[in-house]
Amino acid sequence: MPKGKKGRAAPQRLSELLRVPEGEPVDLAAFDPRATPGGPDAPGGKSAGREATARMGPGLADLQERLYAASTGGDRRRLLLVLQGMDTSGKGGTVKHVIGLFNPSGCRIQAFKAPTAEERNHPFLWRVRKALPHPGEIGIFDRSHYEDVLIARVRELAPRDRLGRRYGQINRFEQSLADDGVTLIKCFLHIGYEEQRRRLLQRLDRPDKHWKFDPSDIDERALWPAYQEAYELALQRCSTAAAPWYVIPADRKWYRNWAISTLLREHLEALDPRYPEAEFDVAECRERLLDEGT
Amino acid sequence: MPKGKKGRAAPQRLSELLRVPEGEPVDLAAFDPRATPGGPDAPGGKSAGREATARMGPGLADLQERLYAASTGGDRRRLLLVLQGMDTSGKGGTVKHVIGLFNPSGCRIQAFKAPTAEERNHPFLWRVRKALPHPGEIGIFDRSHYEDVLIARVRELAPRDRLGRRYGQINRFEQSLADDGVTLIKCFLHIGYEEQRRRLLQRLDRPDKHWKFDPSDIDERALWPAYQEAYELALQRCSTAAAPWYVIPADRKWYRNWAISTLLREHLEALDPRYPEAEFDVAECRERLLDEGT
Repeated sequence: MPKGKKGRAAPQRLSELLRVPEGEPVDLAAFDPRATPGGPDAPGGKSAGREATARMGPGLADLQERLYAASTGGDRRRLLLVLQGMDTSGKGGTVKHVIGLFNPSGCRIQAFKAPTAEERNHPFLWRVRKALPHPGEIGIFDRSHYEDVLIARVRELAPRDRLGRRYGQINRFEQSLADDGVTLIKCFLHIGYEEQRRRLLQRLDRPDKHWKFDPSDIDERALWPAYQEAYELALQRCSTAAAPWYVIPADRKWYRNWAISTLLREHLEALDPRYPEAEFDVAECRERLLDEGT
Repeated sequence: MPKGKKGRAAPQRLSELLRVPEGEPVDLAAFDPRATPGGPDAPGGKSAGREATARMGPGLADLQERLYAASTGGDRRRLLLVLQGMDTSGKGGTVKHVIGLFNPSGCRIQAFKAPTAEERNHPFLWRVRKALPHPGEIGIFDRSHYEDVLIARVRELAPRDRLGRRYGQINRFEQSLADDGVTLIKCFLHIGYEEQRRRLLQRLDRPDKHWKFDPSDIDERALWPAYQEAYELALQRCSTAAAPWYVIPADRKWYRNWAISTLLREHLEALDPRYPEAEFDVAECRERLLDEGT
């Protein structure tokens, strides 16, 4: 941890704390899904975390407006938040609670389900390219092209060699996005096996949550180790300088929301988008408006 | 106004109060853009109105979740909010403040700008069909196919006879949407000529609002009467039982937000969407989850 003056730890950006280092092997068992690294301190954790997230709202919306305004002046920069994680890990909850802090008109949200017949007839990145954020927007992927190296690997939906080539294809694709002004924030929502059981049982206990449940969710649990391995490989091979992965401990919903809001804030602040200069004569326009009625 | 027991006025739905009656001539001069029909009473108007809108938030989000959940059980119903109005009338503000009350993942927002070359090569409804909400979603159009009988009429962007046919084409299109489960809520945000001047001057006064300003906005003001006439015609010819128009007095932003939130609430309540029944054995799934670890 970097040290500041007088030996005290300098505040570290959460992006550094949670980023998966490029090229290093990833062992998910070493990450505690109940941890709250860098987050509001326990025991006030939950309520302090919720308050801290809510307090970020106006600042995030302001940064978003500046990002969008800049695009009207030709700035091509934009954000793409990629959310991946096992069932019940909180991808939908993140959209509701974190993206809900932004102006909806500047958000382009795409949930990726099992590919349609048409989508299967195209290269796997085809449907992803169509859903990218435009300049000035914040794009949100609820699942993504990573499904094509996750479930596709676990369920052997494609030949091994074709699967193996996809990591490189993804890296080149993401590099091209970064080159075009896209800041990628790829979040793996890391929950524990027991926490998933608890959340699935909760869905069963509430009739108003049954629509979110599918008995095949239980079958998928038998493949938990295979999924963890597939995630480890994806994180290891595709956490690049242009498009790093972040591991978000996600057993605690308040921490997940706080951490992702903070990542968004840090990246938006780093972009530091500016309102464009007026390309018209402000004084003259004011006069025209004031004179027209007389 | 309908009377309840003991001669007291029964509460009237805002949808009835603001709806443009089918087939009757529309005189926009008769509508005061500063009015607050059915709204929280002055003098507490502004703060009471804002509070009332905020209080509707959780209920709206709950209705939206039910609508979305129902779609997973085969219910094709959805909402389409169409926002039209002169520059600065508050279309963007409505998306921010009203649609911001909903879960962003269930909202499909489309802002329609001047048609691209590709769009101009297609019938005018082509780009609109591509942006429709899916079952369970709330669609929001910031401008819409009505531009093709508004600016297109005022600026004579199409031959007269082709323009004249569009009203009928729109009505048949909207009827087909209604037949497919789409509830249309078409809102004309009605601001006054003086209020627009005030808002444009405000944009000029603030450098962080310059990006929203275009000097051509001033030129358009010279065509104000022609636009009002074009709106009157569109409201008159296209306020149908299947897809009524609502005139929203929009000089007061708090009223505009309260009124549109209320229209959405009334329509969602009328739909009364239900969580779908579980199509699986809840008890068996619970047992499987509890047993797997032992």
